[in-house]
Amino acid sequence: MDLKDYVRDIRDFPSEGVVFKDITPLLKNPIALRFAAEALLALVENQKINKVVGMESRGFFFALLLASELKAGFVPVRKSGKLPYKTIKEEYSLEYGTDTLEIHFDSIQKGEKVLVHDDVLATGGTAAAVCRLVERLGGEIVQCNFLIELDFLKGSEKLKDYSVKSLLHY
Amino acid sequence: MDLKDYVRDIRDFPSEGVVFKDITPLLKNPIALRFAAEALLALVENQKINKVVGMESRGFFFALLLASELKAGFVPVRKSGKLPYKTIKEEYSLEYGTDTLEIHFDSIQKGEKVLVHDDVLATGGTAAAVCRLVERLGGEIVQCNFLIELDFLKGSEKLKDYSVKSLLHY
Repeated sequence: MDLKDYVRDIRDFPSEGVVFKDITPLLKNPIALRFAAEALLALVENQKINKVVGMESRGFFFALLLASELKAGFVPVRKSGKLPYKTIKEEYSLEYGTDTLEIHFDSIQKGEKVLVHDDVLATGGTAAAVCRLVERLGGEIVQCNFLIELDFLKGSEKLKDYSVKSLLHY
Repeated sequence: MDLKDYVRDIRDFPSEGVVFKDITPLLKNPIALRFAAEALLALVENQKINKVVGMESRGFFFALLLASELKAGFVPVRKSGKLPYKTIKEEYSLEYGTDTLEIHFDSIQKGEKVLVHDDVLATGGTAAAVCRLVERLGGEIVQCNFLIELDFLKGSEKLKDYSVKSLLHY
């Protein structure tokens, strides 16, 4: 099965000149969905994971399933003001200006093994900010994994201190 | 296991006077997470499901896992402007004004059996809008299920045409 058959190019979304990789055809197909889940799990091999951290919002899709199958807990990272309890924050750069990500301060214990997951690795700014949050809580990042990596944006360079694995490369 | 031990009350979130049910302690605990997943699956019993529809953003947590275990596809419903392809829209009422939800027009086929999932059933306005979207596409709603139902807000009355099941009641 070639999962790329279930990824759709959307031109000029979310802004002009951008080609957006739409994974909803993959998600709505039960066989492609299960195939992607198994393939993401295979990236982790037999490494022990205590927490899977998923990034708002599309990172949430697979993160809880990965956590469940790895017998780990799930931890959401969200944009500013969305998490209800005490958080720590990290800023990251956007094309214009900055944005802020938050994680609950009690979500990861010192020394826990962490898998960071998102749907797409683009410039890597978001994922790098998530890694900083995890490490500030004392978590040990075992892997950052992604459904899709946009190689030409060189996001893996921002994550060069970590093991980065992606299912599909463009 | 009493899952309520893993739900935390947050006073005055997101606004003054509201007591928010924070499920992140449940999500971060691998045993509670798996217990909740099994219990949500048990609500569906042996009914055939083709698509699980999850609502942005916290509905995404369990929806893809439920889809995977039910051998169904997953379909996200999102706020206005977030879905990249052609959509249909429904408005729903907020305390002040209205908001809009969207679903991809090609996400559900006529006659498909649909499970609608969200983390919390409050006033039911969001869930009712999601049900309208699903039915406009020709989907047949088998069940609306929730991790938490706030009984005093009477959301199930807005969903009285459907089978509504919730794991935890407050």
